Amino acid sequence: MKVSRRSHVPPFAVMEVLAAANARRAAGESVLNLCAGEPSTGASDVVRDKAIEILTSGSLGYTEALGAPPLRAAIAGHYARWYGVDVDPARVAVTTGSSGGFMLAFLAAFDVGDRVALARPGYPAYKNILASLGCEVVELACGPETRYQPTVAQLQEAYYAGGLDGVVVASPANPTGTMIAADELAALAAWCTEFDVRLISDEIYHGITYGAVPDGGGPDLGSPRTPVPVSGGVAPAETVGSAGAATAAQFLDGGAVVVNSFSKYWAMTGWRLGWLLLPEDLVTPVDALASNVALCPPALAQHAGVAAFSAEGYAAAHENVTRYAQSRALLLDRLPELGWTQVAPADGAFYLYADISASGLDSVTWCERLLAEAGVALTPGTDFDGVAGRDWVRLSFASSVDVVREAVDRIVDWQRRL
Amino acid sequence: MKVSRRSHVPPFAVMEVLAAANARRAAGESVLNLCAGEPSTGASDVVRDKAIEILTSGSLGYTEALGAPPLRAAIAGHYARWYGVDVDPARVAVTTGSSGGFMLAFLAAFDVGDRVALARPGYPAYKNILASLGCEVVELACGPETRYQPTVAQLQEAYYAGGLDGVVVASPANPTGTMIAADELAALAAWCTEFDVRLISDEIYHGITYGAVPDGGGPDLGSPRTPVPVSGGVAPAETVGSAGAATAAQFLDGGAVVVNSFSKYWAMTGWRLGWLLLPEDLVTPVDALASNVALCPPALAQHAGVAAFSAEGYAAAHENVTRYAQSRALLLDRLPELGWTQVAPADGAFYLYADISASGLDSVTWCERLLAEAGVALTPGTDFDGVAGRDWVRLSFASSVDVVREAVDRIVDWQRRL
Repeated sequence: MKVSRRSHVPPFAVMEVLAAANARRAAGESVLNLCAGEPSTGASDVVRDKAIEILTSGSLGYTEALGAPPLRAAIAGHYARWYGVDVDPARVAVTTGSSGGFMLAFLAAFDVGDRVALARPGYPAYKNILASLGCEVVELACGPETRYQPTVAQLQEAYYAGGLDGVVVASPANPTGTMIAADELAALAAWCTEFDVRLISDEIYHGITYGAVPDGGGPDLGSPRTPVPVSGGVAPAETVGSAGAATAAQFLDGGAVVVNSFSKYWAMTGWRLGWLLLPEDLVTPVDALASNVALCPPALAQHAGVAAFSAEGYAAAHENVTRYAQSRALLLDRLPELGWTQVAPADGAFYLYADISASGLDSVTWCERLLAEAGVALTPGTDFDGVAGRDWVRLSFASSVDVVREAVDRIVDWQRRL
Repeated sequence: MKVSRRSHVPPFAVMEVLAAANARRAAGESVLNLCAGEPSTGASDVVRDKAIEILTSGSLGYTEALGAPPLRAAIAGHYARWYGVDVDPARVAVTTGSSGGFMLAFLAAFDVGDRVALARPGYPAYKNILASLGCEVVELACGPETRYQPTVAQLQEAYYAGGLDGVVVASPANPTGTMIAADELAALAAWCTEFDVRLISDEIYHGITYGAVPDGGGPDLGSPRTPVPVSGGVAPAETVGSAGAATAAQFLDGGAVVVNSFSKYWAMTGWRLGWLLLPEDLVTPVDALASNVALCPPALAQHAGVAAFSAEGYAAAHENVTRYAQSRALLLDRLPELGWTQVAPADGAFYLYADISASGLDSVTWCERLLAEAGVALTPGTDFDGVAGRDWVRLSFASSVDVVREAVDRIVDWQRRL
């Protein structure tokens, strides 16, 4: 019987690495998991306590398709608090993780055959969801000269080459951790508005940045950021030392869409809770689509998620970011030992994206052997870059500092023996 | 800026009725909600206690894309227990509600332009999701002569008229509650296998049937079913008096897909947990799609959901079904008072689908006035049937017997005053 052509998307290789790592661990081996983009702490106590209180006190049902009103209001409040941007709660759509948000945003904005640009390397689900929805993906090769981020010039070129209906940007990005400076984001947004190209801004790693960050709840790590000793002449991003990542929430009136989630900064992976900020023209379409394709996001996560925006919720997240900063400093200190000379500047997120081609191995073999011979799980760059990914690996430092330290010890030792 | 053509799906009218009902309730009016397909009890204590235990003891993370192995095994066990069908847990894909299941199944089975048949009247999300994915929906007009269910003859006709790639069936169905007899389901499945047409069987209301039902946990209401006093010469379904609803799980090897959920029988609406049973050819495609479009279903719901398959979990569900049976008996007893002579036979589910055209009002006006003048919220048939739906309304009896009784009192009184 027929299987759809559009289901022929590559699986997320990190899931296969994870399965191999779990199998080794189940067999009694010591395995350090630095492959998944998953904070090891889980949700804060204040969120868990709230969930327990709700489960104890009553029954759950469906919420409104766009989410429970108190959560939509709390999310809008977050934009005033962190960015000084006034967002109408009616523009907030709560979603089933950022995954559910991408599905709804792509369905609402793009038709079959529409062309959507995105950076390579990048998060693979963007292109795989778009392809499954019949959109044409336009990959923009992004290297160190643009901090692995797309530029207006690249959009312009794609536009004149074959037309362009949308662009997905991410700052901080996965896998590189690089950020788009505030003035560059403004330029991208203005260009998109002028050319009727839908800007979709993935801001899932906001709050996980390593300089001064937004006031009133965001992590302020208090000390100057550690310079990133990268090759290739890449300077630290302007944004890192300023108010942290810039948000496209200020460009909703120009047609932009913001995607975010509770999974990273609030460490709520598995709760499947995220949100969109929508321009006015997409509110009704997303509402109609959501009531059909999702009914509503998980209700318990929604009701408990309100607590993430409490002082305790922010404080717990801040504590996690402080730990990521320690792990990041440790990694950057030990880069000479690791011998990785080409590394993307980890402005934010909890990833180090490194060129391991000097080993003479491709990244898939490199990761397989590292796991088998040293018990450390990393993700091959092939997940994020179909062209150059065989030269790169992604290390996630979302677990504890001790785990990261031991992983570095093992990698250094294993590389010596290569 | 451009909004996609495919986002022009009708919103679910029931959500608008619900919003209007909530607004009236907030204004201090007494409103009886019989519009949503939502059990009023919520999840059983055993599931909630399990969720609390998990939240208390540790952190949650992502699960495997196809779901946590213990839950997949528990779901497979359910098929042995209720139907005597042996299902390999590797064929079980846990999904984000049945909504997430439909999205994955449709993406995996159908391409843009593929033709998929379904019954009219029917659950509107089928056609709206299919349309948003670029599929062509072939509506099969189904009336009392076939218990509002599609037949092999109709599929055959659609196949020769323009080709056919898939068919969605539902038993018990929403909004009619009617069931497909076991021999008819077998005939539909055999035809689909022969003609390479993908059969998608929505079994979300399984367990909510009003005769003898499967052994070992399913509701056995112990007494002969109340005959359904319908007009139009519709006899009670053969299936109702026998082992309850037949499952397409026995036809996986022929290419069939089963969709189910914890929302109805286990009253876990809002938890967003469902599952697919997959034929072998769709396991890898669904896995790849799920890891991109969803990452994983809600983790807490998955871990707690295992408890739904315990003796206490089944017993709590059985208690709910007993209550629905009482409400159904009450409704059928009072049909003469209600004056509804054309009613779909409510073999299962918790809906009564009734023709109210004798009132001289269309169903949208009828529902608006009933809500405004008598404080009872029902759903107009236009949600389920774009052709004849203006003559029909759907009453959900998933709330308490007392609420259903008072609603009938109010409707009878209001109709007298019409």
